[in-house]
Amino acid sequence: MEQGKVELYNSKEEYLSDLEKRGKLPEGFKTSVVSLEFFPAERPVEKPLPMKMSLLMLDEPTSVFGAVFTRNKCPGAPVIIGKERLLSDKIRGVIINNKISNVCTETGVEDSALLLEHLAKETGASAKEFFPSSTGIIGWQLPIKDMVKNIPRLVSQLEGGTGVNLATGIMTTDTFPKLRSAEIADGSIVAVAKGAGMIEPNMATMLSFIMTDVSIERETIRNVLKRVVEKTYNSISVDGDQSTSDTVIIMSSCKKQKVSEKEFEEALYNVCAELAVDIVRNSEGCGHVVKVSVTGAPDFETARNIGKAVVNSPLVTTAIFGNDPNVGRLLSSIGDYAGNNNIELDKNKLLISLGGENVFEKGAFRLDQAKEVRLANYLKARVLDSEHKEFPEHNHTVNIDVDLGARAGNVGATVFGSDLSYGYVRENADYRS
Amino acid sequence: MEQGKVELYNSKEEYLSDLEKRGKLPEGFKTSVVSLEFFPAERPVEKPLPMKMSLLMLDEPTSVFGAVFTRNKCPGAPVIIGKERLLSDKIRGVIINNKISNVCTETGVEDSALLLEHLAKETGASAKEFFPSSTGIIGWQLPIKDMVKNIPRLVSQLEGGTGVNLATGIMTTDTFPKLRSAEIADGSIVAVAKGAGMIEPNMATMLSFIMTDVSIERETIRNVLKRVVEKTYNSISVDGDQSTSDTVIIMSSCKKQKVSEKEFEEALYNVCAELAVDIVRNSEGCGHVVKVSVTGAPDFETARNIGKAVVNSPLVTTAIFGNDPNVGRLLSSIGDYAGNNNIELDKNKLLISLGGENVFEKGAFRLDQAKEVRLANYLKARVLDSEHKEFPEHNHTVNIDVDLGARAGNVGATVFGSDLSYGYVRENADYRS
Repeated sequence: MEQGKVELYNSKEEYLSDLEKRGKLPEGFKTSVVSLEFFPAERPVEKPLPMKMSLLMLDEPTSVFGAVFTRNKCPGAPVIIGKERLLSDKIRGVIINNKISNVCTETGVEDSALLLEHLAKETGASAKEFFPSSTGIIGWQLPIKDMVKNIPRLVSQLEGGTGVNLATGIMTTDTFPKLRSAEIADGSIVAVAKGAGMIEPNMATMLSFIMTDVSIERETIRNVLKRVVEKTYNSISVDGDQSTSDTVIIMSSCKKQKVSEKEFEEALYNVCAELAVDIVRNSEGCGHVVKVSVTGAPDFETARNIGKAVVNSPLVTTAIFGNDPNVGRLLSSIGDYAGNNNIELDKNKLLISLGGENVFEKGAFRLDQAKEVRLANYLKARVLDSEHKEFPEHNHTVNIDVDLGARAGNVGATVFGSDLSYGYVRENADYRS
Repeated sequence: MEQGKVELYNSKEEYLSDLEKRGKLPEGFKTSVVSLEFFPAERPVEKPLPMKMSLLMLDEPTSVFGAVFTRNKCPGAPVIIGKERLLSDKIRGVIINNKISNVCTETGVEDSALLLEHLAKETGASAKEFFPSSTGIIGWQLPIKDMVKNIPRLVSQLEGGTGVNLATGIMTTDTFPKLRSAEIADGSIVAVAKGAGMIEPNMATMLSFIMTDVSIERETIRNVLKRVVEKTYNSISVDGDQSTSDTVIIMSSCKKQKVSEKEFEEALYNVCAELAVDIVRNSEGCGHVVKVSVTGAPDFETARNIGKAVVNSPLVTTAIFGNDPNVGRLLSSIGDYAGNNNIELDKNKLLISLGGENVFEKGAFRLDQAKEVRLANYLKARVLDSEHKEFPEHNHTVNIDVDLGARAGNVGATVFGSDLSYGYVRENADYRS
C-alpha cells in the first residue's frame, strides 16, 4: 500500500476488532492496565482526575532491548532513569502512566524510583530491570501514594492476549488506540504508540513500546531502532514541539528463530511507519493529512528538515485547513528554512507540486485560473468528513512534492503532518482540564 | 514607559488623529497613495481585487540610505532589485504595492523594473534611484498594465504633510495603520510599518520605511539600522514564518543638524521598538500579547532564540489563548530548543516566572493550588476585550521571564509574540479571498 494510506473502518467496533486480530502479543509478553483517580497538588479540582497505569512485562528477563529518548534538555524523571537502564544487563518490563509526565518536580526521580521498588517487590524482579515511563501534564507531581497502592492490582492482572489493552491504557488526548504488527520468521513484532499532538521532531509526547519474540543481537536491535526511529517517528510533525518525555522502547523475548538485521529492519520500519501515520491521523483537530515528499537533497537531514519546515509552517497549514491552494507559502517556508540554515538552494532546479500538479518550476510559479480551481477542489476532496467519526475519518493525503534538484547526493525523505485547525487550538487551549 | 506598553485610544478617530499629530513628515519628503482594481491571472474572481500603490519620495536625491532584507532564499523581485540598489550612489524614493508580493513569477524582475522605468520617466529621476517594494500574495504576477497606468496619478498626487497616508497605503491584513516618530536634534525620525501575521524571524511580510532629516553618514546609518533591526523587528514573532519580501528601508534628506551615532541609534531604537510592538498588537487574531524577557544567556542570539522558541511554540500559545497557565510547556519549549541546538542548559540555575510569579527554580517546578488560581486570573485579566474594537484592544502584556543563569556573558533579549487563537486560523485559512 502507498505510504500514508491506511485501511478504513466503518465503525469503531470494526477497527477495534481488527486491532484485536493483529494485536496478539509476541510470545513471552504480558500486559495489564488499571484505572485510578487522584487529586493533584497543583490545581484545585472539583472531582478527582483519572489516570491509567499500565504494565508491560516479559515472562523472563532479556538482555535484548533498546530505547531512544527525547533530545529535550529538560527531560522527565522517567527519561533520566531510562537512559541509565540502557546500561542494565537485563530488563523485565516497563511501567507506564498517563495524565502526568513527571517532569522536573522536586521529588520526580525519587517518585519514579519508589514506583519501581514497589513493582520489584511485587514481581520478585529487581527495580533495575524496569523502565518507568510517564506522559501527560508537565510540572505536576505524580500522585505517588495512589499509584503505589495500585501496584499489587496491576501485577495481579497481568495477562497474555493482545496489545490492545496496553495501547488503550497509554492514551492521553488520543481518540483511538494505535497498534501495528508484522509477522517475521516464525514470530512477530507488535508495537503500540501514544501521541496525538505536540509531535515533532523527536517523538514529542510520543511513547511507543515495541515487542518482538524473534532472536536478534542486543547491539543489532539498538542500531536498527535508531535508524528506524529517524525515518518514522522523527519524520512526523504536528506542531513542531518535542516533549520532555518522548520514549521508544524495544524488547525481544528471543523465543523464536533468529532473523537477519536486514529482515528485522524492514519489518520494524513498516510497523513504525504505519504507527507514525496513525499518530498524525489521530492528531488534535486534524482535518487534512499532509505528506511532503522531498527528493534531490544533498543529505537525509536536509530533506527531512525541509519537509518539516513545510508542515510546521502555520501559514501553510492554516491555508490547507481552509482548502486554499496558497502555494506561495510552500515556497516561502522552503526559502525560509534554507535562508536561516545556510542551505544551498538553486531556485532554477527547484520543483514543487501539489496534488501532482506542477506549481513551481525553473525559478517561477506555474499558475493559472484553471489550475487554481483544480487545486482548490483537490484540497476540498481531501479534508476529513467531520460527520464521520470513525477511525480514521478518511485515508487521503494532501501530497506535496518538493525536488531540491541536488543531483549530488539526491537523498529523499517523507514527512507527515496535519493542517492547523480550530480543533487544534480548542484541544490545546485547556489540555489540563 | 515600560517596553511593550502602548497608549490606549477611546476610538479609532482618536488614534488616527494622534497619528496625524506625531506623523509629520521630516523635511524633504513627500508621499502619495492611489487605489486601483485588477483581475488576477491566477485565480477566477467575480469582482476585481483592490490594490494600493504608494510612493515615498525625497525632494532631492540622497546618498544617505540603507536597507535590511529577508534572509529567505526565495526572495521577491523587489528584494533582488533592492539589494542591487544598496550599491547606488543616490536614491530618490520607494514605490510600494500591497496585495501581490511579486515573488518568483516568470516576469517578476522585469515587471518591477518596468514600474521603475515608468516612474523615472514621470519624475525625471533615474530608475536606479528607486527601490521597488511589494507585499501580499506570493506567486502571483503583478497586474503590471494596471499599475503602469496609475503611475502618472501617483506622481502627480505627491504631497507633504504626514506619513499616515503612506502607513495606510501599505497595509494588507493590518487593521490599523502603524506609525511612530521621535524628535532628534532639530529634526525627526518618522517610520511606518506594515505587518500583522507571518512575523518572524526576519521581519516576515513586514515592510518598514523610515524617514529622517537629520544629518548622518551613509556608513553610520547602515550600521545603526542593522543593529536596531536585530533587536526590534527581528525580535518579534507571531508565527515563526519569515516571508520572501521583508524589507526595512531608511533614508535621510540630511536637511537638519548633524547628530552623533549614539544619539541616532537611541532614537531609532525607540521608534522601531514601538513599531514592532504595534505589529504584534495588530496581529491576526491576537488575544494576549506575550513578552518573553530572557536574561543570563551567554550571547544575544541564544537569548533571543530561547525567547522565540517560547512564543513560537503552538502549545504555549494555545494554552495562553485558553487562559490556562500550563507552565510545563514553557519549560518544554526551552528544553526543546536547547536540546536541538546543543545549547548548554543548567536546569538548577534556570528560573522561569509567569506574571512575576516564580514557577520554576532550582531544577523543579514551584506550583501549588493557590498559585494556579492566581496565574489563571492573571491570564484572564490580560486578554483583549473582543467587544472593544479600538486600537489597541488593551495595553497589557503576559510577562514571561526566563533567566538561563549563565553568569558568564549574562546577555538578555526581549521577544514579543501573541497567543494562537481561532482568529489566527480564520484569518489565514483563506488569506487570498
